[in-house]
Amino acid sequence: MDTSGATGLWLVGARGSVATTAAVGALGIGHGLAGRTGLVTERPDVAGAPLPRVEDLVVGGHDISTTTLSKRAEALAEGGVLPPALVRALGPDLEEVDRRIRQVSEHPHGPQAARAGRIAADLRDFARRERCDRVVVVNVSSTESPLPSHPAHEDLSALESALRQDEPVLGRSSLYAYAAFRAGCAYVDFTPGAGARLPALRELAEREGVPWAGSDGKTGETLLKSVLAPMFAARGLKVRSWAGTNLLGGGDGATLADPGPQRSKARSKSRTVQETLGYPVEGPLHIDYVPNLGDWKTAWDHISFEGFLGVGMTLQFTWQGCDSALAAPLVLDLARLVAAAHAAGYSGPLPALAFFFKDPVDCTEHGLAAQYELLVRWAAGLPGRRT
Amino acid sequence: MDTSGATGLWLVGARGSVATTAAVGALGIGHGLAGRTGLVTERPDVAGAPLPRVEDLVVGGHDISTTTLSKRAEALAEGGVLPPALVRALGPDLEEVDRRIRQVSEHPHGPQAARAGRIAADLRDFARRERCDRVVVVNVSSTESPLPSHPAHEDLSALESALRQDEPVLGRSSLYAYAAFRAGCAYVDFTPGAGARLPALRELAEREGVPWAGSDGKTGETLLKSVLAPMFAARGLKVRSWAGTNLLGGGDGATLADPGPQRSKARSKSRTVQETLGYPVEGPLHIDYVPNLGDWKTAWDHISFEGFLGVGMTLQFTWQGCDSALAAPLVLDLARLVAAAHAAGYSGPLPALAFFFKDPVDCTEHGLAAQYELLVRWAAGLPGRRT
Amino acid sequence: MDTSGATGLWLVGARGSVATTAAVGALGIGHGLAGRTGLVTERPDVAGAPLPRVEDLVVGGHDISTTTLSKRAEALAEGGVLPPALVRALGPDLEEVDRRIRQVSEHPHGPQAARAGRIAADLRDFARRERCDRVVVVNVSSTESPLPSHPAHEDLSALESALRQDEPVLGRSSLYAYAAFRAGCAYVDFTPGAGARLPALRELAEREGVPWAGSDGKTGETLLKSVLAPMFAARGLKVRSWAGTNLLGGGDGATLADPGPQRSKARSKSRTVQETLGYPVEGPLHIDYVPNLGDWKTAWDHISFEGFLGVGMTLQFTWQGCDSALAAPLVLDLARLVAAAHAAGYSGPLPALAFFFKDPVDCTEHGLAAQYELLVRWAAGLPGRRT
Amino acid sequence: MDTSGATGLWLVGARGSVATTAAVGALGIGHGLAGRTGLVTERPDVAGAPLPRVEDLVVGGHDISTTTLSKRAEALAEGGVLPPALVRALGPDLEEVDRRIRQVSEHPHGPQAARAGRIAADLRDFARRERCDRVVVVNVSSTESPLPSHPAHEDLSALESALRQDEPVLGRSSLYAYAAFRAGCAYVDFTPGAGARLPALRELAEREGVPWAGSDGKTGETLLKSVLAPMFAARGLKVRSWAGTNLLGGGDGATLADPGPQRSKARSKSRTVQETLGYPVEGPLHIDYVPNLGDWKTAWDHISFEGFLGVGMTLQFTWQGCDSALAAPLVLDLARLVAAAHAAGYSGPLPALAFFFKDPVDCTEHGLAAQYELLVRWAAGLPGRRT
Repeated sequence: MDTSGATGLWLVGARGSVATTAAVGALGIGHGLAGRTGLVTERPDVAGAPLPRVEDLVVGGHDISTTTLSKRAEALAEGGVLPPALVRALGPDLEEVDRRIRQVSEHPHGPQAARAGRIAADLRDFARRERCDRVVVVNVSSTESPLPSHPAHEDLSALESALRQDEPVLGRSSLYAYAAFRAGCAYVDFTPGAGARLPALRELAEREGVPWAGSDGKTGETLLKSVLAPMFAARGLKVRSWAGTNLLGGGDGATLADPGPQRSKARSKSRTVQETLGYPVEGPLHIDYVPNLGDWKTAWDHISFEGFLGVGMTLQFTWQGCDSALAAPLVLDLARLVAAAHAAGYSGPLPALAFFFKDPVDCTEHGLAAQYELLVRWAAGLPGRRT
Repeated sequence: MDTSGATGLWLVGARGSVATTAAVGALGIGHGLAGRTGLVTERPDVAGAPLPRVEDLVVGGHDISTTTLSKRAEALAEGGVLPPALVRALGPDLEEVDRRIRQVSEHPHGPQAARAGRIAADLRDFARRERCDRVVVVNVSSTESPLPSHPAHEDLSALESALRQDEPVLGRSSLYAYAAFRAGCAYVDFTPGAGARLPALRELAEREGVPWAGSDGKTGETLLKSVLAPMFAARGLKVRSWAGTNLLGGGDGATLADPGPQRSKARSKSRTVQETLGYPVEGPLHIDYVPNLGDWKTAWDHISFEGFLGVGMTLQFTWQGCDSALAAPLVLDLARLVAAAHAAGYSGPLPALAFFFKDPVDCTEHGLAAQYELLVRWAAGLPGRRT
Repeated sequence: MDTSGATGLWLVGARGSVATTAAVGALGIGHGLAGRTGLVTERPDVAGAPLPRVEDLVVGGHDISTTTLSKRAEALAEGGVLPPALVRALGPDLEEVDRRIRQVSEHPHGPQAARAGRIAADLRDFARRERCDRVVVVNVSSTESPLPSHPAHEDLSALESALRQDEPVLGRSSLYAYAAFRAGCAYVDFTPGAGARLPALRELAEREGVPWAGSDGKTGETLLKSVLAPMFAARGLKVRSWAGTNLLGGGDGATLADPGPQRSKARSKSRTVQETLGYPVEGPLHIDYVPNLGDWKTAWDHISFEGFLGVGMTLQFTWQGCDSALAAPLVLDLARLVAAAHAAGYSGPLPALAFFFKDPVDCTEHGLAAQYELLVRWAAGLPGRRT
Repeated sequence: MDTSGATGLWLVGARGSVATTAAVGALGIGHGLAGRTGLVTERPDVAGAPLPRVEDLVVGGHDISTTTLSKRAEALAEGGVLPPALVRALGPDLEEVDRRIRQVSEHPHGPQAARAGRIAADLRDFARRERCDRVVVVNVSSTESPLPSHPAHEDLSALESALRQDEPVLGRSSLYAYAAFRAGCAYVDFTPGAGARLPALRELAEREGVPWAGSDGKTGETLLKSVLAPMFAARGLKVRSWAGTNLLGGGDGATLADPGPQRSKARSKSRTVQETLGYPVEGPLHIDYVPNLGDWKTAWDHISFEGFLGVGMTLQFTWQGCDSALAAPLVLDLARLVAAAHAAGYSGPLPALAFFFKDPVDCTEHGLAAQYELLVRWAAGLPGRRT
């Protein structure tokens, strides 16, 4: 595989916190001003794989916001998410990235086919201008409401007809998957949306020979669940209830205060425990918007479990994490891994990337250690050696 | 392998909380009065291995206490550790087990060779009376002070000479290992003592053809460390500090209030994080005796870690566990697994049982998931099928 | 005041956990088998007041359940709420109390005036048979939905007409207040219902010369709020958000899973922080039913606050309490205090008892220390001395 | 009282975190650039008292460090303790304050009388140059080891002789108290040292007619204890154990890693619970140095308590506070209150200021609410009205 050229990273939601942090990080690493903490692709187990370098990622994207990347980065620096000195040092670079971001309408009119066409055109244009060997589209926009099912989701030709009607048939995440595939780009869904998981879109990805991955980046509470649930299972301890409260501010918190997106998120978050343990576990799961917390998220989980001879015990944890700082390196990891998969000829879903997701596609393994091993073995099997 | 006969389980500290809970559990399971929650050997991944049945374990042992097993069980029932109805139902059986427990002196006089001889004689007598195919000695006595090193630890014949002197040369855990090997019994160290890890004792075990395992059962805080440390590692997150406070009452708490045993315990507890992450991590580790907590243990851990671009985050957990209920099924698991190893011709240390220990012998893998896989593969490789 | 005779304690919900614990406690104290931990009226500051003795309380009541008090007490003993030996020792006494409990229909038919008449007749009959100087009715039944307002609530004669109609006009807590007043009994609302707080009922209490108190016993999370909110206030620290999650099993948990009662409870719980700080504080308040927790309740609160020069800090607490054990002594305290108030000639609401309630009537002081001082001063002012 | 002139605030440890935060805050308030959150003297209950204005405080002091106040403020801004914009805006003002700070030797030679003389001369010089009506010396230096008792502590003339010897007889906090009194200045001990509590120094303060207050500012864990212990007491709940772990970085953490200062601190911290409850409470109290936490402190407390009929329950809290941000406004409060006391003719200890201290002088009231009431009443009694 030739990884000498540039790899495009097209972010849907390119001026949001996660995207801004990813852009600042990629630029910072490129200039030798930032470290690689939090990048899974820099772990000794994975770093030997033939992946494009972080330094060779070229960032562009779409956003509905008109606040520039520099402004967003400054706000994140004030909130303690980004180092102020790094943001200052990267000023001109951030402006350059910002020029590659196209502002799009929040509520576009007309048939979705036209919108998909414009997206695909932007992608092709970006690839050409930036001389990218390939482009990975990563959806880091805010959580959408669950998509109502529609007969046209089942079949590609039915979908193409439906897209030409006035009535929208795809959610944002799926429309971007469609457009990406049409433009020959790989796709990653970092949000809980349906993304490329519709049969019609799976068909299209296979036909176009492009790989995709998803869904919903695993950054906090679910990351912990993915090691704690296997622990209880391995020890034969019976989990009686698992209650979770997530307090978060920031844009994602505001979005998740809406019942629709909240339902999407909760559905995605609930798989890990249930599928790992193999039995239903009671307990509420709350996602609450607490504006003053900003980009920080506090999760409290209370797990009640039963040991030998019926003795009841409990585990509680409090996770205080910065979502953008946790998500951004995973976005860079996924761009590198999915680009390498594309170069290696993979098409369709990549279940070997389950490690990164709350709701992994075509994979029922939720244990983090097993997922990590899957990833390491898959990366080791990529043809070619890192340059 | 023929597992139709009885397997002896000789407990050092046979009237303590862990031993009593193990005895009540084994009897309860035998009578169909208790479930198998918490037994790793009953997990689908392991249950197919040719292990002796829980029902076929015959319990005996040594203790310095004269409080009978029934009395101890009643006290544990009052403290909420054992179900009162189960203890009542098992009254006569517990008295029968208690008759197989020999009271020993806390501070025996004379050369250790004589004492070892008496222990070995008790073991042979137990095996003969109870018609055991084999006996596994499990040390569940309270934590001892770290053993000062001695030249005789390095070589078996030097050790045998030294044992005939008046001055003691072995700690309790090592003396029991010596006596067990001499009597042809397998040995498990569930405490943080040196146990069989001295070169002289390793030599003896190989010569006698008996297997052994240890040390220090992994039941609470360290169990959590063994899934959380790999999680931080896999995600490339840098752990800055890991502070732990353990509050415990009960006999173990009282013992660990002494600086000697506390040092032993802390040494054993510290391996997991350091060896998993590969770099030193600052942070205090406290073990505090709080009598009113009885057999319950509360551990609070505070982990400070660094994510992408240097952002600091924290994880805290509070584990409220009943140590006896966590340890007892592991003791039964180990008796079954080590007996099967003995039957299968294994001798010397069993690193495949690292899953059960804070301080696993001959194994630097501390990740629970990897240890579990190791165990499952090893158990699958045992010759013979379960009857 | 003559406190030599018996004082009746009539419990609405007399076979519930709180009532059973109160009855077991009162009997246990009477027989010298139980201590007085948790009784505020036994604190040195209050114990000198001329209150009826715990030993002189005679318990009776209403319940919709047919499970006897003894059965309920045994179940609570199994769940760790009551000492098994105490329950066994009190067997015959509990049966005697149970004979004074009348089973009532959950969904009674006919006009509420008739039902109130039956309740009042039961109260008079109880007082006569048990030779009580006076009777205090305490509502410890499960939380009801908030009462829709009705014009008849404003005026006693309008209310009496309305009660004769087929359509119910009062919630359970208010109907009991009405019946209690009609029978010349004092009334305490330990639940979040409207109770005696309707103008028509206030009028009746004054006319009948009986005192009343309420509402919603302060036992756990709100108890903590009533000391923490004043702490932040006294230090001039600005609370930015206060989020609370309450996990509870048991009967109360099941009731509070319904949106109606949950709304009642949340309304009652929200006063303390807001009224103490004097400004609105954001943050969710969850009450979740987690059956396996039984009579235990776990509350986690996360408080984000701002210090000097805008620095953000947090306080979290986890309260693991047994609601019945916390509530029962307060029920006995209130019976003693309200009976003493009645004897001393008080009528109408007793704001001096705000210390006991989440939603204190006619009192905006929510600081526990100030409420305690109020209570102590009030008790000191009761005429007469304890015999 | 005439409060129109300047009031001197002389800080021992004037370039430390607390002092720097206090100086930045006072200057920021003076310029209208900072708010008054966290200042108790700005609470409506106290604000009416005739106190010198924050704007009229003139800061000076001693430190062993040569790092300027500006540098220290910049470091604190980077660590998130101070707002970067505020620090930038105050640059020249901080330099001016820094010129009023005199560097002193960490290990001065010669008799302590000479050293006291130099300190007193610096204080008189400061008062004269800055035209201060009066000066309050506040000790915010790091915690010292407990002072060995000495016969000269009992009597002023014996002390004066002893001070002329070569061997030191007073700890730092007491030497500063001596020098302050000699120079006619009031003194506040914000650290756990002996300060002015020696009989000889009490005698001197009375003779010189100056007031003093102490010791050990109550900023975090003990603040919580001072509301939680009274809560348990008021409810008649029995505290069985109270365990505390304090993790802290920064200079204070480093100092407290030494056994001597740690003993001082622990002694001071232990009064609240014991004296409030009136019985001894078991439980460890740890103070651990965790460098990466910087100026932030995390305290975890685990309280086990007993309710009605012996039921055991627990409360845990985690306090994540910024010590400097919590302490600095209290330093300004104390300067204002003690200056007002001095102006009003008070001399000797001021027990009415117990609200501010872990180890209040001449006061056994540790309940925060009662202490607040004491403060409010005392402030209301100060002669004169605020201008």
